[in-house]
Amino acid sequence: MDPLLPYVAELNLVDHHCHGVLRDDVDAVGFEEMLTEADVVSPWGTSLFESSVGLAVRRWCAPLLDLSPHAPAAEYVARRRSLGAAEVNRAFLVASGITTFLVDGGLWPERLVGPSVFTGSRELPVIRLERLAEEVIMGGATGFPDQVRRALATAPAVAAKSIAAYRVGLELSGERPSDAAVVAACERWLASGSGRCADEVISRFLVWEALERGLPVQFHVGYGDRDLALHRADPSLLTDLLRATAVLDVPVMLLHNYPFHRTAGYLAQVFPHVFVDLGLATHNLGHQAGRVFAEALEIVPFGKFLFSTDAFGLAELYHLGALFFRRALSDFLLSGLRRHAFGEADAVRIAHLIGSENARRAYRLD
Amino acid sequence: MDPLLPYVAELNLVDHHCHGVLRDDVDAVGFEEMLTEADVVSPWGTSLFESSVGLAVRRWCAPLLDLSPHAPAAEYVARRRSLGAAEVNRAFLVASGITTFLVDGGLWPERLVGPSVFTGSRELPVIRLERLAEEVIMGGATGFPDQVRRALATAPAVAAKSIAAYRVGLELSGERPSDAAVVAACERWLASGSGRCADEVISRFLVWEALERGLPVQFHVGYGDRDLALHRADPSLLTDLLRATAVLDVPVMLLHNYPFHRTAGYLAQVFPHVFVDLGLATHNLGHQAGRVFAEALEIVPFGKFLFSTDAFGLAELYHLGALFFRRALSDFLLSGLRRHAFGEADAVRIAHLIGSENARRAYRLD
Amino acid sequence: MDPLLPYVAELNLVDHHCHGVLRDDVDAVGFEEMLTEADVVSPWGTSLFESSVGLAVRRWCAPLLDLSPHAPAAEYVARRRSLGAAEVNRAFLVASGITTFLVDGGLWPERLVGPSVFTGSRELPVIRLERLAEEVIMGGATGFPDQVRRALATAPAVAAKSIAAYRVGLELSGERPSDAAVVAACERWLASGSGRCADEVISRFLVWEALERGLPVQFHVGYGDRDLALHRADPSLLTDLLRATAVLDVPVMLLHNYPFHRTAGYLAQVFPHVFVDLGLATHNLGHQAGRVFAEALEIVPFGKFLFSTDAFGLAELYHLGALFFRRALSDFLLSGLRRHAFGEADAVRIAHLIGSENARRAYRLD
Repeated sequence: MDPLLPYVAELNLVDHHCHGVLRDDVDAVGFEEMLTEADVVSPWGTSLFESSVGLAVRRWCAPLLDLSPHAPAAEYVARRRSLGAAEVNRAFLVASGITTFLVDGGLWPERLVGPSVFTGSRELPVIRLERLAEEVIMGGATGFPDQVRRALATAPAVAAKSIAAYRVGLELSGERPSDAAVVAACERWLASGSGRCADEVISRFLVWEALERGLPVQFHVGYGDRDLALHRADPSLLTDLLRATAVLDVPVMLLHNYPFHRTAGYLAQVFPHVFVDLGLATHNLGHQAGRVFAEALEIVPFGKFLFSTDAFGLAELYHLGALFFRRALSDFLLSGLRRHAFGEADAVRIAHLIGSENARRAYRLD
Repeated sequence: MDPLLPYVAELNLVDHHCHGVLRDDVDAVGFEEMLTEADVVSPWGTSLFESSVGLAVRRWCAPLLDLSPHAPAAEYVARRRSLGAAEVNRAFLVASGITTFLVDGGLWPERLVGPSVFTGSRELPVIRLERLAEEVIMGGATGFPDQVRRALATAPAVAAKSIAAYRVGLELSGERPSDAAVVAACERWLASGSGRCADEVISRFLVWEALERGLPVQFHVGYGDRDLALHRADPSLLTDLLRATAVLDVPVMLLHNYPFHRTAGYLAQVFPHVFVDLGLATHNLGHQAGRVFAEALEIVPFGKFLFSTDAFGLAELYHLGALFFRRALSDFLLSGLRRHAFGEADAVRIAHLIGSENARRAYRLD
Repeated sequence: MDPLLPYVAELNLVDHHCHGVLRDDVDAVGFEEMLTEADVVSPWGTSLFESSVGLAVRRWCAPLLDLSPHAPAAEYVARRRSLGAAEVNRAFLVASGITTFLVDGGLWPERLVGPSVFTGSRELPVIRLERLAEEVIMGGATGFPDQVRRALATAPAVAAKSIAAYRVGLELSGERPSDAAVVAACERWLASGSGRCADEVISRFLVWEALERGLPVQFHVGYGDRDLALHRADPSLLTDLLRATAVLDVPVMLLHNYPFHRTAGYLAQVFPHVFVDLGLATHNLGHQAGRVFAEALEIVPFGKFLFSTDAFGLAELYHLGALFFRRALSDFLLSGLRRHAFGEADAVRIAHLIGSENARRAYRLD
């Protein structure tokens, strides 16, 4: 392994999409259940430590808890519990070198807590659109459009997040829905008796409203848990919506993208307002992340790629997400430098763009 | 090239999905026609020996027939014929190091014969669901559901195989069909006058019946011959069915998967009963198989990946399937060991899981 | 970096699909706008020189204009303008080593000019089917089928080009449309008031007519500008049409294909009349093209892969397309030679097939 390029090792990263970390300790089964996108450990497989990310925890996280590299899984979890959640969270968050976190805190708010509690880093909220809708719908269908507008206008968020991929798939129409159409959709939703926002018109309305208020919108794309169907989470299904919203001139972020990262790169090249990342996949692929990272950078302009971890629950995922991002970025740059594809000044510039500057520009963080 | 890791070279492989080998000799054209998934040799292209698998035959199979590596194609085929089918079959099957074969013998039963005839290895049958339906439908629509149940209950098979990908595509509904719906589908089928089972309700019924009887179901996914449309053979189209059948707690195997192997890995991670392999692609990619193998192992838990050849007709394909599998697995492990991503005990463990233990567990072979 | 294999460096390439080069000079913004598939330079990103192809221009094109490798973008564009379009075009076209160009001149005919003007190379026209239809429809619906036939019969073209991917997507039916169906579609088109041919029946009709006249048909597939939706440009959507047209025994060329290049390779393997290339992607990926090139060659028979640049406007793209093609091909062959996957005679043969012989055979150029 080559050493990390120093200007990659020293990047102060902006993690433009992550969730909180567990407030409390977790036992061995709970740890495995949060390690990958599987809900449960399957009796048909073996331990989920027997996966790329599991190997990565034993290799790269164990030493931060004063264990040997490759420590056995049971020893790792025991040591983790003996230290306690607060110390573990602090250790991994500090090691990540992330100095700004954009946090979607809308999942498990009772069990998770923001990373800044442990590091004092800058933390900025991302508002979860479908969750907002699920709160606003309580007030009835008629006032729904105005209530959503009011909530977005007053939310302290720097971005909004859409999980349309999970609820209706990404094939959203390009048409901005009228309030009447939204109210009708809300009436159908209320009549269904479900508390879950899963309507294409409403998902689309939420995205338009956020963008029109100047809030960048993050879309879950591709890889996630089993509640989605991967073929409905292909980012090119968003093409009509991207075409229609380009005129608003507000960033749209395609998150994760694996295994559609090449398709996402295409969208970021041709649509002026589209950015992409490789969060979630980076730590899940572990030592193999470099290949996918290089694929993701094939045609995306370097001014349109962002860093994120998508870390959720386990603080290890912040550390691993940042570590394998730095490793992949460094390897990508070193490989180009060795072929004389670009010079060192270019490499430094690309590192800073991807590590933090693109996020600062897109979210107006400065 | 690095030498194979000894614990990979010595694996006694379980080939969890293959077909038989040709009983009789084959001429030059016949050989080329069985080499890839093309039905015929095209006058627009050149010899099908000018392909990854063709080069692999000349490089790796020629020496086993006492020819030089890279022997010309014509010399290879002539030598093969002079030795005779029985000796050729024996040579390649023994060289493969496969000790257990799960055989889908439902294609060309008159021309193919099981591999154990030549090696004395363990051979276990896989029942082909659409073929079973095509036999049972002869007895009429009304008794179809019960006859299928009876046949599955008494079949000596260790697994069932669905070729829904070829017949109706993989977008199967998650609903278990009622007997009445199946009978109605059978009546439509009989009225169509076709002998071919190509009905979504029936394919789905067959899968549910097999799983409910505890028979693991293998699905053809992705790469195959020209009778399928690749976009309808994307494994994520199975999501609804996988979600619905998870409660049955019986393994579902996604076969081949190329070029959807990353999507398949996702499904194996998030669904407790899903396993995947890279059969067919491994020997067709030849010396390039390592890259795709590594991609296939990105997010799949190591307890959910299986070895198979999908060899059909030519005994060379068993040899090449096993050889490039071992080469790819060894390279994958060596690369990880060199980066210190895991230790040697982990590498040995992963090799055994993938080479045989996962199959033994999933099919209860012990 | 390894040196290029001499027999790859010396290939006289046939570029089986490209467009013309700009007749006049272009300023900095205009240059960036033609560099990638983005229409405009986005204020949200940075300069489009900060992309794989932008780095490649500075590295590999600058020295041909007597600048240092990696010259700054502004210096590059200034130097280019000072030399003038004619000299720049000549320099890059000569450097490409392409000796035969098949040119789709149907886009921007007023601003672009064929490459042979600058090199004296052989240049052969490709007729653009949708453009032909847009001319013929002026004469009314009734005579449309006959007028199309007359135009195709007398066109000097060696091939026809379909941009169905942009207009209706690639999911074309396999049925040959009747003249009556075509006339009805034309009437609908005329009634719509649009000048744009965007009808599935008409696109399909044009393809059948060209093939029946023995004209190979090129399809835009995959990567292109933002007027398409990538998921509707998947080549496997063409399966029904490919199955139906196989009997005509006339080549069908799948162009570009990224990121569906593996799927395209599958189609070229199983359909006797299908060829594929990796144009457009090759220069856009720059120093990363080798990985995708190797992926594209995984299962395609070597007699079915073609070279093209898809260069449009900027003569640099001919140079980069040829240069990265040679680099990728050389690396592919060297890697195989080092692993002893094939011998040197095989490598020379594969280089010549892909560099020119496949195109000569498919288009009957000799």
